[in-house]
Amino acid sequence: MSKKVNKRKNVFQVYGINNCLPILNNSNYNVIDIFIAQESNTDFKKLLSHEKYGENIQYLKKHNFYDKFGDFRTQGIVVTFTGNLVKNLQENKFVKQNSCLLILDQIEDPQNAGQIIRTSECAGIDGIIFPLHNSFKISNTVLNVSQGAFVNMPLYEVTNISRAIQELKKQDFWVVGIENGLDSKLWNEIDYSGRIVIIVGSEGKGIRKKVLDHCDFSASIPMQGDINSLNVSAAVSAILFERLRQIKYI
Amino acid sequence: MSKKVNKRKNVFQVYGINNCLPILNNSNYNVIDIFIAQESNTDFKKLLSHEKYGENIQYLKKHNFYDKFGDFRTQGIVVTFTGNLVKNLQENKFVKQNSCLLILDQIEDPQNAGQIIRTSECAGIDGIIFPLHNSFKISNTVLNVSQGAFVNMPLYEVTNISRAIQELKKQDFWVVGIENGLDSKLWNEIDYSGRIVIIVGSEGKGIRKKVLDHCDFSASIPMQGDINSLNVSAAVSAILFERLRQIKYI
Repeated sequence: MSKKVNKRKNVFQVYGINNCLPILNNSNYNVIDIFIAQESNTDFKKLLSHEKYGENIQYLKKHNFYDKFGDFRTQGIVVTFTGNLVKNLQENKFVKQNSCLLILDQIEDPQNAGQIIRTSECAGIDGIIFPLHNSFKISNTVLNVSQGAFVNMPLYEVTNISRAIQELKKQDFWVVGIENGLDSKLWNEIDYSGRIVIIVGSEGKGIRKKVLDHCDFSASIPMQGDINSLNVSAAVSAILFERLRQIKYI
Repeated sequence: MSKKVNKRKNVFQVYGINNCLPILNNSNYNVIDIFIAQESNTDFKKLLSHEKYGENIQYLKKHNFYDKFGDFRTQGIVVTFTGNLVKNLQENKFVKQNSCLLILDQIEDPQNAGQIIRTSECAGIDGIIFPLHNSFKISNTVLNVSQGAFVNMPLYEVTNISRAIQELKKQDFWVVGIENGLDSKLWNEIDYSGRIVIIVGSEGKGIRKKVLDHCDFSASIPMQGDINSLNVSAAVSAILFERLRQIKYI
């Protein structure tokens, strides 16, 4: 990232077609620069609206482009932009009868966060909630790993997870925590057909006790091998597609 | 990784408790060095059998240890070892009536490969097959991302995927390719209760046509959002836990 970009708050930089095109096709973002490698395999001139972005586009010679961005998977395009990537949970009313929200309790790894955003978008849930403190932050890594999913998936940063849960319960959400407790149900025994909040914790520490206390039930994915350690984004995938199966494909 | 290690073929280096302890507790590997940070939070002296590994253990002062291994998540322990991490498919007979194998067709990303090995171990399948060419190789990254799962999950490197499939069909395996084809079934409509081979391709290119031709059927996970791009390791998780649900938890 250039120094100019680093100094400015809330300026993000994304790489590659999957990440860049959703930004350019969405009026919620303020595009600063579009860097394009000359002689790219992709014809970006066709893909980009020059009326709209002509001033922002910088065509760089291939070697200059790769000097600048060679560490990333760019496919010849890099976009810097500003925008508010986080929504306000309180301002949102969930109207769907089967709304599903995911709470990430103190997940710090940006790779996991990005993968979870990507999987959540593909599995069709309605938002991801994460705490302001002791959590990943929205960063270039998170955005890029999500492969453009952050554009469609509402992300809610909240100061207090417990309070957020209480508010959601007032909107008729059931709350399930994913953890291997003695009285946990199996992940596929949960009825995901109504409004549901699914909580996952970090791999090391799990869900905090005070957050777990708000859960209506807990569910586990029984480990079949010896290592007993499923990656949190893999767990999220197993659970969200089990939900999808139940609500749409039985 | 030290230069000494780099030069030697088939010498691997793993970091952290989850990766190191399975190596030390398994007689199939030849341990070269065990590096331990003095004043670690973990009492490695208790965890390690000094009769067996006394000569191999090197206690390093904390700053020396982190000078050497600071780029990795070590939890204060690093092990270098040699060993044959790949098994021979031809020498193996699958006896379980619900044996399940995963074929990774030209998946090159070592992060994805490592995550898939980890998820596969947790989901209790019987092995992973990948081609010798145009594929990830067993590397330190693959091993470390798998979080010790490589010790338990049989990994089969084959020169020819099509031939491997033909051999498995002789052992009564059904073959399903995961891809969004017109005549694909839904992922949950597949009957996973018998012997089954599940094939996934790379995110960019999918399964090669000549490999797909060997499939008895294909299955897809319908994307619910706009990005239409599920990470291959997330797809594997959704499918393997759907199989587990069918064979064990209905």
